[in-house]
Amino acid sequence: MPTIALVNGPNLNLLGQREPGMYGARTLQQIIEGIQQAFPDHHFPHFQSNHEGELVDAIQRFGAESKGIVINPAAYGHTSVALRDAIAAVRVPVIEVHLSNIYAREGFRHTSITGGACAGVISGFGEEGYHMAVGHLLFHH
Amino acid sequence: MPTIALVNGPNLNLLGQREPGMYGARTLQQIIEGIQQAFPDHHFPHFQSNHEGELVDAIQRFGAESKGIVINPAAYGHTSVALRDAIAAVRVPVIEVHLSNIYAREGFRHTSITGGACAGVISGFGEEGYHMAVGHLLFHH
Amino acid sequence: MPTIALVNGPNLNLLGQREPGMYGARTLQQIIEGIQQAFPDHHFPHFQSNHEGELVDAIQRFGAESKGIVINPAAYGHTSVALRDAIAAVRVPVIEVHLSNIYAREGFRHTSITGGACAGVISGFGEEGYHMAVGHLLFHH
Amino acid sequence: MPTIALVNGPNLNLLGQREPGMYGARTLQQIIEGIQQAFPDHHFPHFQSNHEGELVDAIQRFGAESKGIVINPAAYGHTSVALRDAIAAVRVPVIEVHLSNIYAREGFRHTSITGGACAGVISGFGEEGYHMAVGHLLFHH
Amino acid sequence: MPTIALVNGPNLNLLGQREPGMYGARTLQQIIEGIQQAFPDHHFPHFQSNHEGELVDAIQRFGAESKGIVINPAAYGHTSVALRDAIAAVRVPVIEVHLSNIYAREGFRHTSITGGACAGVISGFGEEGYHMAVGHLLFHH
Amino acid sequence: MPTIALVNGPNLNLLGQREPGMYGARTLQQIIEGIQQAFPDHHFPHFQSNHEGELVDAIQRFGAESKGIVINPAAYGHTSVALRDAIAAVRVPVIEVHLSNIYAREGFRHTSITGGACAGVISGFGEEGYHMAVGHLLFHH
Amino acid sequence: MPTIALVNGPNLNLLGQREPGMYGARTLQQIIEGIQQAFPDHHFPHFQSNHEGELVDAIQRFGAESKGIVINPAAYGHTSVALRDAIAAVRVPVIEVHLSNIYAREGFRHTSITGGACAGVISGFGEEGYHMAVGHLLFHH
Amino acid sequence: MPTIALVNGPNLNLLGQREPGMYGARTLQQIIEGIQQAFPDHHFPHFQSNHEGELVDAIQRFGAESKGIVINPAAYGHTSVALRDAIAAVRVPVIEVHLSNIYAREGFRHTSITGGACAGVISGFGEEGYHMAVGHLLFHH
Amino acid sequence: MPTIALVNGPNLNLLGQREPGMYGARTLQQIIEGIQQAFPDHHFPHFQSNHEGELVDAIQRFGAESKGIVINPAAYGHTSVALRDAIAAVRVPVIEVHLSNIYAREGFRHTSITGGACAGVISGFGEEGYHMAVGHLLFHH
Amino acid sequence: MPTIALVNGPNLNLLGQREPGMYGARTLQQIIEGIQQAFPDHHFPHFQSNHEGELVDAIQRFGAESKGIVINPAAYGHTSVALRDAIAAVRVPVIEVHLSNIYAREGFRHTSITGGACAGVISGFGEEGYHMAVGHLLFHH
Amino acid sequence: MPTIALVNGPNLNLLGQREPGMYGARTLQQIIEGIQQAFPDHHFPHFQSNHEGELVDAIQRFGAESKGIVINPAAYGHTSVALRDAIAAVRVPVIEVHLSNIYAREGFRHTSITGGACAGVISGFGEEGYHMAVGHLLFHH
Amino acid sequence: MPTIALVNGPNLNLLGQREPGMYGARTLQQIIEGIQQAFPDHHFPHFQSNHEGELVDAIQRFGAESKGIVINPAAYGHTSVALRDAIAAVRVPVIEVHLSNIYAREGFRHTSITGGACAGVISGFGEEGYHMAVGHLLFHH
Repeated sequence: MPTIALVNGPNLNLLGQREPGMYGARTLQQIIEGIQQAFPDHHFPHFQSNHEGELVDAIQRFGAESKGIVINPAAYGHTSVALRDAIAAVRVPVIEVHLSNIYAREGFRHTSITGGACAGVISGFGEEGYHMAVGHLLFHH
Repeated sequence: MPTIALVNGPNLNLLGQREPGMYGARTLQQIIEGIQQAFPDHHFPHFQSNHEGELVDAIQRFGAESKGIVINPAAYGHTSVALRDAIAAVRVPVIEVHLSNIYAREGFRHTSITGGACAGVISGFGEEGYHMAVGHLLFHH
Repeated sequence: MPTIALVNGPNLNLLGQREPGMYGARTLQQIIEGIQQAFPDHHFPHFQSNHEGELVDAIQRFGAESKGIVINPAAYGHTSVALRDAIAAVRVPVIEVHLSNIYAREGFRHTSITGGACAGVISGFGEEGYHMAVGHLLFHH
Repeated sequence: MPTIALVNGPNLNLLGQREPGMYGARTLQQIIEGIQQAFPDHHFPHFQSNHEGELVDAIQRFGAESKGIVINPAAYGHTSVALRDAIAAVRVPVIEVHLSNIYAREGFRHTSITGGACAGVISGFGEEGYHMAVGHLLFHH
Repeated sequence: MPTIALVNGPNLNLLGQREPGMYGARTLQQIIEGIQQAFPDHHFPHFQSNHEGELVDAIQRFGAESKGIVINPAAYGHTSVALRDAIAAVRVPVIEVHLSNIYAREGFRHTSITGGACAGVISGFGEEGYHMAVGHLLFHH
Repeated sequence: MPTIALVNGPNLNLLGQREPGMYGARTLQQIIEGIQQAFPDHHFPHFQSNHEGELVDAIQRFGAESKGIVINPAAYGHTSVALRDAIAAVRVPVIEVHLSNIYAREGFRHTSITGGACAGVISGFGEEGYHMAVGHLLFHH
Repeated sequence: MPTIALVNGPNLNLLGQREPGMYGARTLQQIIEGIQQAFPDHHFPHFQSNHEGELVDAIQRFGAESKGIVINPAAYGHTSVALRDAIAAVRVPVIEVHLSNIYAREGFRHTSITGGACAGVISGFGEEGYHMAVGHLLFHH
Repeated sequence: MPTIALVNGPNLNLLGQREPGMYGARTLQQIIEGIQQAFPDHHFPHFQSNHEGELVDAIQRFGAESKGIVINPAAYGHTSVALRDAIAAVRVPVIEVHLSNIYAREGFRHTSITGGACAGVISGFGEEGYHMAVGHLLFHH
Repeated sequence: MPTIALVNGPNLNLLGQREPGMYGARTLQQIIEGIQQAFPDHHFPHFQSNHEGELVDAIQRFGAESKGIVINPAAYGHTSVALRDAIAAVRVPVIEVHLSNIYAREGFRHTSITGGACAGVISGFGEEGYHMAVGHLLFHH
Repeated sequence: MPTIALVNGPNLNLLGQREPGMYGARTLQQIIEGIQQAFPDHHFPHFQSNHEGELVDAIQRFGAESKGIVINPAAYGHTSVALRDAIAAVRVPVIEVHLSNIYAREGFRHTSITGGACAGVISGFGEEGYHMAVGHLLFHH
Repeated sequence: MPTIALVNGPNLNLLGQREPGMYGARTLQQIIEGIQQAFPDHHFPHFQSNHEGELVDAIQRFGAESKGIVINPAAYGHTSVALRDAIAAVRVPVIEVHLSNIYAREGFRHTSITGGACAGVISGFGEEGYHMAVGHLLFHH
Repeated sequence: MPTIALVNGPNLNLLGQREPGMYGARTLQQIIEGIQQAFPDHHFPHFQSNHEGELVDAIQRFGAESKGIVINPAAYGHTSVALRDAIAAVRVPVIEVHLSNIYAREGFRHTSITGGACAGVISGFGEEGYHMAVGHLLFHH
């Protein structure tokens, strides 16, 4: 029963209440349950934090304990070299997911510092982006 | 039998022979057949061109005849305002796919001019990126 | 019966259906007929293409066969050195027209590469911009 | 008898003597008389100043007393946020005119800060640019 | 009866009619009367101008005649080195006030050239920003 | 008894000992007591942290429990998109305060990433900046 | 009888009439005949187009059928990532030639996007630049 | 008795009181008298203003009435295209003088927009810079 | 027995396993023991964290309890103003160490925000860089 | 017996030992002898120096004594305005040669300051680049 | 008999023959003799070199042996930090002179790296610039 | 008796007299004697020059005759590609030393062009920086 870790960054704990037009009406808990239901034969440890350092810790920890990692770095994707270094340091593949299409938002969201260390980046598909990433790690890597 | 158009940009006709380490060993024809096999109940008209203008034409044409468009703009994704305007002008959703992870390559590939007009962008998953995009357009839009 | 060529660039074939609030409700065909009606004693060969190269060809061809050229380069006005070079290479005056006011839109539309090789630039007057340009070429050059 | 105000910026009082090859041989007075002759049924109050603040005052005043404003901001078009704010604050349409083609001159003239708040911009047609602008305001707005 | 001078820059004479959603529904006259009522024991000479030079003059004059100056430089805050030099040249403290939050507007309003020479900057509190500044100069400097 | 939360960012726990010429001689504790004394009828829960993530947490928590938030983001104001997103995500008004005038310091302090999501920004008034912000939230919002 | 393909980009079909002071008085046809005469034992298929896409096609086609390619990308050398990718994708050596010295012209001609994928770049030698490139491919590669 | 006009820009009326360490202890009046004493056989009409537009007016007026102009544009030297255009428009030589060495101050003073239209620029010699400029215009032009 | 604190930033807990070619084969624990052995008469409290805030805390704490601090800020050296402020706020000397030569890596590692507040920076000497820094603090400060 | 001077810049005295994969296995002496053998009827004075000033001297000296100059400025091509000025000051044609293709190396080698003053630039042909340049100067200038 | 050293940089040994329209028809020797004649009671050791290092040496040497230095750094004024450091290191005043007006030439000549360490900068007065500088050092310093 | 060469760049011959607060009170001769005393069993040939080219020569010469090189490139560290190329061309390790902390000085000293080709960089430790570098080359390389 392979394990895919789900790591979610700052302010994603507010999903469902924060700008639903942008981020969708479902909570993070509902999104994670949706993933579990879609892939019932697998295990999805998950972790959300608003702290850059805890996300670095999580990447390191899941990098040793999982088959792959799906991270939505949220704002830290645009500013964190530390997170990029953590992703580059682990040996399992990491996929970056953004709920909204970062290219269609403010200019400072058009780049991804963390993305350069990931296997791939998925942006703009809402909750389904997680499913795409999980599916890829489970069946195509 | 809904139609998802597949539009491929410059040099993608060389797939299979051009830098297989970067782009994979399968030809564009094989990739398209793979999509058809994966989604046998749907129709996938496809078009490849090295010409920016023909890609603009294709977006306009498929924008009127399909349920959605998957485009791999290749190099034009980084330079073409004309293609961006075409994507913005059609009413069906358009998803941008890149075979390689554009964030892990030269700096001039880190931006996507066309991506800002798309519904979403998928980068770094090779051939499977097309499947993700098609699946999203068929089942989640 | 002097000839003023009308050259229209990418996505202008969609006029009338593409963002009418921005570009107006009239089709390109209607705009051209409007010009013919306004200046009944003159000849207005016209050409629209989504292809940068065909627009270069058209500038070269009309540069040898007309008294002047009115070009709406659309997106290529912001990216095409080739079109600029073509305009600089012909001997008849060329006037650049944009339907919308390029200064009031996204930053990447605030510059005109082609404009530097033209006799003048008219931006923001919708369909009437063509009339201004034609009138100038016919009566004031 | 509708009123179109004509507002001219710094150094335009020198027209006729200042670089005639660039700006033409006619004085500002002659240009204004030419406009009056071309549109004899209308009223054209006019104002020229080398002072940014007086131009802001004029835009405010004419914004309340005219059907529209034609402004040649000259150098202030490239530097004045105050003038831009004034144009944005009035309710009548304002058209920006430049005698020379700003795109064919020094780089610091390639942008127009004021143009983004105008209805349209006309550049490179010499004296006739004013006629184009006036005609547009009178007959097409 | 200490004196705090109130200096207001370009287009602020239009307050009450210019974009009330952005700048509020009260006129500059009403704002000044509000300050007088709030601080009845003090004297508030005031000056508004659309002219950069008159604002420099005012800063110099009030710098010699008042206990402090509250300036809303409006657009000149983003472009005027002359005004900055004037503020740096006077010995009384100067506080900069902006009605709207300049950080939440266009990029060219995110900087304040004049602010670097002021004692402090207050942005985004509408009319109350003046009260904050006046109160600070009267009771805390 | 309305609640205004006070959130203070990195190194502000050193107030009173860190560069008193720049930041004042009073400790953070003294500043908070001063606020309580100035507004005795209100409640001021407060939180200081050197951790970006804890500040994001605090904004989220106080965003649900208070009438408004006064934040001095210190260094994170210049680098944190995560904090900006948190401020944008909560529904209560947030005011940004800087003790020193950020425009009069090093260039990398002249911008505020977080400020664009706040209701207003107050910079350069030392301890009194907090009082201005609190007063605004209590009496003018 | 080895084959060296000659590929010429936009507006080079105008050679002989377009700015002879800059580009020389000989037509493209004369230049190609001159190459044939200078190297009579070799075959020189040639292709000129104003279309970026046709040039990409040509590079791909000649990349499979020739010993090497000499390309004068003209304006597309400064803007085309698609052409650069095509050059990088073929296995035969490609040499870039510019008739004029690109370093002595406008700033936007000082860079070559395509040049980074070529074996070498020759700029400023007029017609002889083609001879240099052909000679290099025939005798030194 | 040739005439050299002396034009002084914003805040120079404060000379003698404004940062004497930077600008010297002498007033503008004393500086002008010093010039008159040093060159007793010549006439030195002079004009100081804090207004950009009045300085443009002065350049135009003195450009018609003097043998040459010495201008200390102060802050406007770094921001005014209008003043540059005025200097370029007059036929007499104009020399720019700065009391302090602009290269040894803040970065935004390292450039001179007006200087490019002057015959020469003198920076860093305090009051004597005017004497150098006057001497040059009288005896070496 | 003077105390030199050792503070290590994000991902340095992975030393020995993370890219040994870049960072060496020894663990952080081994590096710290090596320092202790090299300087047996001194005390080396140490702290590693992936959290920017905890590093700020550590700098503050060790700033009060040690003779000096050696910090390897890793990725935060390139992004953290908060850490720079903490270093500037403490009174003991702080030396920055990087294992690899930051100038020989990606461009975004060529700058050090924290380095400007340190006494010195040592880059590229691997584990020995710590010894250099410790030796300097113990014997030369 | 016309004279073409050969001038070689910094570190080219190391040819044959310095990165042969990049610069070839032949020494500068061998390259010069190869040129003499290829063009036996001509004279090739040559000069190599690591000193920018000696290269300026050499350009000046050979500019008076030769029919033309071939210079490989190496690193100084990217930094030296002095060398550019020397090339511009002499009357004989100067051709710039780079052994490697500067466009395919680090970004700071993509520009040539000296190239703008040369007749032409040849880059990427190794030793043969000198032959191309010499041949051009002897037979085509 | 005070000594003012004259230091001249690269390519100034060509004066009289190099672009006389730009630099004048007089040789450097004639310029120096002219200075000696104008100030017969003083001693003017002089030094010209095309070598940056020799100019640094000269500044150091004359810094110890003269009352002041006049330097025309020519091209090195735009590129040499070494020369700037040398000027900053000597105790006598150094004045920078440029024959042409650097602000009216190419953009890369608009800055002076060395000027920031000088007492003043004189640009655009040809040979007389040296006289201005010498006079200032002799009589006003 | 291994040899470590010491190479010192421009203006370092002035050590002891040039800004002692910045660079220390000891002369270069004293610094070199100090190194010899600290490492009595080794040989330290040394070379100082203000000439970029002589420093390139020295790097090449010592690169063939020593075990390693310690270079303080001073100003050339910030501008010299030639020196960088020389360092990259030699096979012995080169360590860059700066007396002052380059990160705490003017912005144009924050980068090191030469540092990218060195084994490591030491900045801010004054004279001891040389000892650190020498020790590293002797005992740890």
